[in-house]
Amino acid sequence: MRKRVCIVITARPSYARIQTVIEALHANPAVDLTIVMAASSLLHHYGKVEDDCPFPVHHRLWSTLDGHNHVTTATETGLLTIKLAQLFYDLKPDVVVTIADRHETLATAMAASYQHIPLAHVQGGERTGSIDDKVRNAVSALADLHFPATPKAAHRLWQQDVKGTIFQYGCPSIDLAARVEPDPSYAHTIIVLQHPVTGEATYARAQAQETYHAVTAFRTHKIVWFWPGQDAGTEGIAKFLREQEHSGQHGIEWRRHLPAARFLSALLGCAALVGNSSVGIRETAFLGVPTVDVGNRQMGRERGQNVLHAPHLHDAIEAAIHHQIAHGPYAQDTLYGTGDAGRRIAAALLDPAAVGTAEALDCHSHAAG
Amino acid sequence: MRKRVCIVITARPSYARIQTVIEALHANPAVDLTIVMAASSLLHHYGKVEDDCPFPVHHRLWSTLDGHNHVTTATETGLLTIKLAQLFYDLKPDVVVTIADRHETLATAMAASYQHIPLAHVQGGERTGSIDDKVRNAVSALADLHFPATPKAAHRLWQQDVKGTIFQYGCPSIDLAARVEPDPSYAHTIIVLQHPVTGEATYARAQAQETYHAVTAFRTHKIVWFWPGQDAGTEGIAKFLREQEHSGQHGIEWRRHLPAARFLSALLGCAALVGNSSVGIRETAFLGVPTVDVGNRQMGRERGQNVLHAPHLHDAIEAAIHHQIAHGPYAQDTLYGTGDAGRRIAAALLDPAAVGTAEALDCHSHAAG
Amino acid sequence: MRKRVCIVITARPSYARIQTVIEALHANPAVDLTIVMAASSLLHHYGKVEDDCPFPVHHRLWSTLDGHNHVTTATETGLLTIKLAQLFYDLKPDVVVTIADRHETLATAMAASYQHIPLAHVQGGERTGSIDDKVRNAVSALADLHFPATPKAAHRLWQQDVKGTIFQYGCPSIDLAARVEPDPSYAHTIIVLQHPVTGEATYARAQAQETYHAVTAFRTHKIVWFWPGQDAGTEGIAKFLREQEHSGQHGIEWRRHLPAARFLSALLGCAALVGNSSVGIRETAFLGVPTVDVGNRQMGRERGQNVLHAPHLHDAIEAAIHHQIAHGPYAQDTLYGTGDAGRRIAAALLDPAAVGTAEALDCHSHAAG
Amino acid sequence: MRKRVCIVITARPSYARIQTVIEALHANPAVDLTIVMAASSLLHHYGKVEDDCPFPVHHRLWSTLDGHNHVTTATETGLLTIKLAQLFYDLKPDVVVTIADRHETLATAMAASYQHIPLAHVQGGERTGSIDDKVRNAVSALADLHFPATPKAAHRLWQQDVKGTIFQYGCPSIDLAARVEPDPSYAHTIIVLQHPVTGEATYARAQAQETYHAVTAFRTHKIVWFWPGQDAGTEGIAKFLREQEHSGQHGIEWRRHLPAARFLSALLGCAALVGNSSVGIRETAFLGVPTVDVGNRQMGRERGQNVLHAPHLHDAIEAAIHHQIAHGPYAQDTLYGTGDAGRRIAAALLDPAAVGTAEALDCHSHAAG
Repeated sequence: MRKRVCIVITARPSYARIQTVIEALHANPAVDLTIVMAASSLLHHYGKVEDDCPFPVHHRLWSTLDGHNHVTTATETGLLTIKLAQLFYDLKPDVVVTIADRHETLATAMAASYQHIPLAHVQGGERTGSIDDKVRNAVSALADLHFPATPKAAHRLWQQDVKGTIFQYGCPSIDLAARVEPDPSYAHTIIVLQHPVTGEATYARAQAQETYHAVTAFRTHKIVWFWPGQDAGTEGIAKFLREQEHSGQHGIEWRRHLPAARFLSALLGCAALVGNSSVGIRETAFLGVPTVDVGNRQMGRERGQNVLHAPHLHDAIEAAIHHQIAHGPYAQDTLYGTGDAGRRIAAALLDPAAVGTAEALDCHSHAAG
Repeated sequence: MRKRVCIVITARPSYARIQTVIEALHANPAVDLTIVMAASSLLHHYGKVEDDCPFPVHHRLWSTLDGHNHVTTATETGLLTIKLAQLFYDLKPDVVVTIADRHETLATAMAASYQHIPLAHVQGGERTGSIDDKVRNAVSALADLHFPATPKAAHRLWQQDVKGTIFQYGCPSIDLAARVEPDPSYAHTIIVLQHPVTGEATYARAQAQETYHAVTAFRTHKIVWFWPGQDAGTEGIAKFLREQEHSGQHGIEWRRHLPAARFLSALLGCAALVGNSSVGIRETAFLGVPTVDVGNRQMGRERGQNVLHAPHLHDAIEAAIHHQIAHGPYAQDTLYGTGDAGRRIAAALLDPAAVGTAEALDCHSHAAG
Repeated sequence: MRKRVCIVITARPSYARIQTVIEALHANPAVDLTIVMAASSLLHHYGKVEDDCPFPVHHRLWSTLDGHNHVTTATETGLLTIKLAQLFYDLKPDVVVTIADRHETLATAMAASYQHIPLAHVQGGERTGSIDDKVRNAVSALADLHFPATPKAAHRLWQQDVKGTIFQYGCPSIDLAARVEPDPSYAHTIIVLQHPVTGEATYARAQAQETYHAVTAFRTHKIVWFWPGQDAGTEGIAKFLREQEHSGQHGIEWRRHLPAARFLSALLGCAALVGNSSVGIRETAFLGVPTVDVGNRQMGRERGQNVLHAPHLHDAIEAAIHHQIAHGPYAQDTLYGTGDAGRRIAAALLDPAAVGTAEALDCHSHAAG
Repeated sequence: MRKRVCIVITARPSYARIQTVIEALHANPAVDLTIVMAASSLLHHYGKVEDDCPFPVHHRLWSTLDGHNHVTTATETGLLTIKLAQLFYDLKPDVVVTIADRHETLATAMAASYQHIPLAHVQGGERTGSIDDKVRNAVSALADLHFPATPKAAHRLWQQDVKGTIFQYGCPSIDLAARVEPDPSYAHTIIVLQHPVTGEATYARAQAQETYHAVTAFRTHKIVWFWPGQDAGTEGIAKFLREQEHSGQHGIEWRRHLPAARFLSALLGCAALVGNSSVGIRETAFLGVPTVDVGNRQMGRERGQNVLHAPHLHDAIEAAIHHQIAHGPYAQDTLYGTGDAGRRIAAALLDPAAVGTAEALDCHSHAAG
């Protein structure tokens, strides 16, 4: 009988972290794969994922509430729980996959685990220093199969006494990074990607201003600024960016998003990445991109040599960019994976027991202790 | 300014575990206390808590879906999340309190933590061996103040790297146990309290039958059988009990519930407790009641000398009851508390920082490690 | 291409009113039929419809909230709207069918009409004198195809300026009545079927007591009392009935429900029907059963000669029963249909335009007036 | 005892149609007034109503789903029903007021009527020719107090056999129109206000293009274009408008919204209004503004002499604008009210029975017929 796998994607960044798993599952005739797009993955202004996804999307569950504040965040997670509970009841999947740590991932986790459907969690065990840590740990607590990216993350899960089995194969997003060639047209470009920080939503605009001030000091470089993802505080940043976009000053190129492969090529080719995206921690380690990580959003996350941190102060950011441009490309660091995570995660999803025990960290024995 | 505390009660057993905290908060003029009753706490046939609660109930949120299966469990948690999110938005409490590990407690936890309202969790860190473990750990992951009952539970929370501060003061339910006198009318009585086991819902009726077979062998003792709580599998047990009730055989006394104090007096006075309620692990340790714990529901939970375990097989249960009746009352064991938890939890809720650091296990330093 | 028809059943009585439509659609290879069971149709204690339904049930949407009061009534309709909206989005039916006037039917109506999916409403245009009238008219306002049972109901819909087309073919429940033979074992039986009255929920118990007082006066007749349907007030009646059931007095036979065909045979064979079910107005007209209609629940509904009304006073009810038993069977009255409604409704659902214009009352011209 | 009135506002246009009622209630010490803002009334990009509302807003219920398609429309109405049901349960108002015909108004109507709370509906009985008709009639079916604007609308409600009482006092939005002076700065201005048409969402962009083509032909007039309200199809229009806005061509002035009073002054002062807003039918009749009503959105709505209709074809629109500019201001038409609706509606809300029977059309007698 074919194994029924259901993957729930709720945001653009999650897609890049599951794409090569989907590729491996889709190529396997023994798999009955259901792809569910929910929350901001369906929304044009947060980079509608579907347009880049060559695989059939089976279900679309709109759940994001307009308003984007803390009460809508909680409400939309409740709403998505209701919708996914019914969907899983109808589908009866053998395993449900959820990715990372956005607030909606807890909806996927509850809808599956409360129905005793095995839940796989990709990217548990990391630390980033905000409410995302809480959500990530809560999802790990509900999950049965764990696919952390790094050895340290795997160890943390083991210590947290999670149920089930831990497989540490790296992050599937690195698989994509391993495929790309640098885009030479970004040679003299600074790429900016800055999201609001949960818990600091009211400062989101001011934080964007500091970064803007810093990057516009680099007159000899082109600036490509990417629109932020949907979260509390996004409106503040978006309003500021729209004002700059309309002003037309500084010749900044504004982008909603790029398909993952082209974005990674741009990164690999660029002079420096500035902002607070997790891409600046993960993929850039493998690609060796000089990166300036700004503020608290990635605080606590494991990082390679390529990352220099700066607070939300324009002169500190500017100084860090100077240093990174002067340094140039870094050596490859496989902290977040070696490029075969997708294939290995797919195999473990289909038959966790068949995967060598040397690969798995079985938590049952630990949990009983 | 008065401190706004909001306590959400979703089931009868939770009330006994928070009652003395409520008493302490209610007596304090510096506290603006909101009591919310939700889920099965509002339902007559699961022992409507409100009837025993002498304090004003401010909000009633019906959320339990009739049908009581796994998909309704997930759905009602989503629905309650929506309702509590709005309520917390309107109330703006300084701290929200959730209790134990029922599936709905995750609704309280999400609705508060997603709005960055400090969340206190009573009874984290325990292990019982079913999905309750997952829910309990997920709630702990979202909480900021932790009130585990036992030193071992406190240590587990510390090891799980939860956020915030851990205070280990024992379980408030022991405060109630410390107040009661034995009810002599239960001297020759076996009390039965058996719930369905999550994940074993289809066997719930058969499990009840085994216990029934065992206890009805004791012709010289009176049997008082308490109705089970609401959960997947309850209908199976309830149907069986109704059949026995109507048959009128064996002179069993059927009870929906008793007020907590009277129930504890009955326990303290009885010959033995049989079933799988957590009361049989916690309060009975303090009271020294000979207890037969049946099946997997409490598996993994710390227990005193007074508990003998038996599988869901009538002869094993019968043998264990014989042993316990022959043994008679056990010595007091303070594993789950010494009787002052309510007062101390109330104090820590109001001002966590003012409580001596000797009492608190601050997780911040640990989390950063 | 096959026509996709989706029928949503939310309660036991609705099934009898759509069964012969389902039979006709199921027998038609050009139809892709989806049957959805929701709300109380899934619940054992309200006579789980599925057990009597020989056709495959495709989706089960639990939505009924335990508690059964006015706020749960509104809440569960919102919840079911959310679930049905997603289901219709996934299914993309050509037409959705909703039946009668329970509060949940408005969920079906909104979920379909807001997505511009043609909505068919069976049993619009009637008057019963409670909130059901409001719900029924609101559903008619949203519907595109109308299948009222009586000429007077059809005329009311026309006058209400509803959208779309009106087809008056009678009620499909009469199709079932036209098939049955009397059950001779009910020859000396009084059948009781009394529901709570919306808006009079607090009197539900007292109303049941009056009827109980009246029917137990008939010592020479057997009493068969059917359990009420789920609604605000049901708990009050149910508690009273349980007490009588346990008392074992008067030798009353208590029934949860019977399959529709057996129930109609019982009706056709009995001495009198007492209560406030719509069965006592509709099917009994065709069957000629002496009926005592009690209280306001059916007030305003068109009725045949076979119905005698009584207020909720035991002596008035008793006198009316005496009169009806003395009268004996009435002549057949085709007020609610002639027995071919199912076949004709199925045909009009599949191709409204092809049905002779002589049969249809097209509201478009009227609406424009 | 003070009478508890709860008014639910879900969109910007509704506020203008209830403002003078709020003024009258707020000035009355016998009234305990609760204002609830929900749905798009809370959203910045649909003209956040609160900013113009000088009265305290007591509750904010976010319910609008990002995505804005037909399935989100149904889903958000279900979600709002859940939230309002709980709110009305907590508040226990004596009367709830809902306005006009947006899809969310049915959430207000269900949440109140299912809890037997008297429901007042402002602006029932009109005809506009889209799904709004269905929603409006469904709300009227659930309401107990009806405040239609025109005699024809009142007559339709009477014919629809609605429950309760009908009071025809005109539309409160006319009260505002009666207060304003013309804004001379709009003397040579064409104002455009064009919304997507429900059921024609996919053509929304093309329809905006036709209007754009038409108005940009008027080189001697200034064009002020107002952003559309939130609905299925809004994204299509918004995208087109953003493109034009960025192009900077034709010197069009783009506005999100104006406070009601300033908007009416602008209308009274302008050369012509073009689009499909109901303002172009209602307030402009009283103000005598030359209006070009485009497409089907207002089709079927009663209109004064000041309105010229045009299909969504640029040359037809252009010709109609020429005619209207040439004609100049029209005489006042009181079709939609004389300016005292707010005061009279407030009085009838507080004590429907005390209002002279000459004013009220009591539907009870009619309903019984």
